[in-house]
Amino acid sequence: MPPPIWLMRQAGRYLPEYRAIRAEAKGFLYLCYDPAMAAEATLQPVRRFGLDAAILFSDILVVPHALGLAVTFEDERGPEVERVGSARDLDRLDPTAAVSRLAPVFETVRRVRAALASDATLIGFAGAPWTVATYMVEGGTSRDFAATKRWAFSDPEGFGRLIDTIETATIDYLVAQVAAGADVVQLFDSWAGVLADEDFERWCVAPTARIVAAVKVRADVPVIGFPRGAGVLIDRYAAATGVDAVGLDTTVPLAWARDVLQPKVTVQGNLDPLLLVTGGAAMERRARAILEALGRRPFIFNLGHGVVPETPPDHVAALVACVRGWRP
Amino acid sequence: MPPPIWLMRQAGRYLPEYRAIRAEAKGFLYLCYDPAMAAEATLQPVRRFGLDAAILFSDILVVPHALGLAVTFEDERGPEVERVGSARDLDRLDPTAAVSRLAPVFETVRRVRAALASDATLIGFAGAPWTVATYMVEGGTSRDFAATKRWAFSDPEGFGRLIDTIETATIDYLVAQVAAGADVVQLFDSWAGVLADEDFERWCVAPTARIVAAVKVRADVPVIGFPRGAGVLIDRYAAATGVDAVGLDTTVPLAWARDVLQPKVTVQGNLDPLLLVTGGAAMERRARAILEALGRRPFIFNLGHGVVPETPPDHVAALVACVRGWRP
Repeated sequence: MPPPIWLMRQAGRYLPEYRAIRAEAKGFLYLCYDPAMAAEATLQPVRRFGLDAAILFSDILVVPHALGLAVTFEDERGPEVERVGSARDLDRLDPTAAVSRLAPVFETVRRVRAALASDATLIGFAGAPWTVATYMVEGGTSRDFAATKRWAFSDPEGFGRLIDTIETATIDYLVAQVAAGADVVQLFDSWAGVLADEDFERWCVAPTARIVAAVKVRADVPVIGFPRGAGVLIDRYAAATGVDAVGLDTTVPLAWARDVLQPKVTVQGNLDPLLLVTGGAAMERRARAILEALGRRPFIFNLGHGVVPETPPDHVAALVACVRGWRP
Repeated sequence: MPPPIWLMRQAGRYLPEYRAIRAEAKGFLYLCYDPAMAAEATLQPVRRFGLDAAILFSDILVVPHALGLAVTFEDERGPEVERVGSARDLDRLDPTAAVSRLAPVFETVRRVRAALASDATLIGFAGAPWTVATYMVEGGTSRDFAATKRWAFSDPEGFGRLIDTIETATIDYLVAQVAAGADVVQLFDSWAGVLADEDFERWCVAPTARIVAAVKVRADVPVIGFPRGAGVLIDRYAAATGVDAVGLDTTVPLAWARDVLQPKVTVQGNLDPLLLVTGGAAMERRARAILEALGRRPFIFNLGHGVVPETPPDHVAALVACVRGWRP
């Protein structure tokens, strides 16, 4: 049997049917909170390509939004989040109220589950606390995460309260996604790769471990963790967070993933999204190398990062055929 | 003996005496090509902090500039480089003429060597071909290196000619720096961390290995390689490029560096520049952890990335004192 395949950001701008919905929606957040449109966006790539899993169409920044912060998405500039600059700002955030504000997302999950074939997996998700915190502290994406690091380094107790706030909301959010029908949840720690030893432990590993433990108690579903860019520290993450599977970014060497990680956890990844743009023999050669290295032990085929808008949909179809045609 | 210490981007905007020179210069490139000013900028941090090495004040983009491309630096927007989009554009570039255009840089090296104490090391440098190529293909910095990867994936022969062109110019450039007085050279591969297995081998390891071999034949100085963000693949880089020392970015775990890398090469790094901004006990605790882990075998204390403009100069002085006060 070939491994299952789904793709991070498999719903999105590279699909004409998605662009049609997006043009109708009043904004990106509006789309995330409209259950009919979000369910349709979630289902489109599964319908078109016969992928093994649907991933909820949403964004990791709905959590800061539900915590009470202004969040805006401009296609050109990237997301902007109302800044949280100090421990004092935290008093404005109410983590226990956040989940009720996310009710439309759970309705989306219910609709997708009802429409999805019973043998297809529905994946819910959230951002991991460190990554979500960087958006809240920087006000958006960042090159060097200067403000977040300076806060974490100089006032770890205050910064820890921010992490705790996000963590509390995230646990409730993931548990409610499962209650609504999600079979698996993934934690995206997109900026895990900027922290060193003890800071990685404190701000990535520990909050993730607490979320995984709480989700396991209250919801009992597999959890995939994606500590993007964490390099050598992915091993520590796999060993210490309790996740069932670890997502590998594009640069994780296959032999190392096979020898060091796969004995501990299922691995998921890691084709370069730009190879999916390139397509053809180069894409298929690398896809087969990934399958040969990782496909004989617990493995989920995926990209190492999200699908980019320039991706020709035909290349996705070719990739799915390539993976489905492989035999261990 | 404590290990030697210098800091990447130790000359720069965080120093008032640098800002004074920069205000006089007509532009950043002008400063790089003015031997009197560039020598002064190089010497300033050594004079102020008593660092063990001076690193030539220059920029990795002088090589594309010397190859004939327009290069501009705007403080706000980052560098812009005239784009090289295809193999056809390569005919405009003349790698053998590049070194003669860089004559002012060699004059800077001579002046610094003459002014520097004989026991202080003078480090020359260049960008590694992959990193320099990304600037030439993207036209500047990039988030996902889409254009560079697409070219490399879809037309490896054509892209290989670009890499060869940069490589040829870089060898001549480094050899000439040594002839002018550099004691050591460092290759900055700032974007090494975005390539996977075979592409890392082809576009980072192989060109670096060829440059190191050529420099060793013609100049016989130690070479430091800095494959920033390469994670697990730093091990392969250390084993296969022939570099004498490997620079570690901030996220390389100390235990792994000690156990896996240090038996093969000298290591250099890797304090987070944001800890240098933070200063105080947090900075000194991590500096001592680095020294305890790596300071008993061949090691050069440095940051894991360049000094940032917000750095208080007093923190640099405190860091130097902390390193000098440590005993193995």
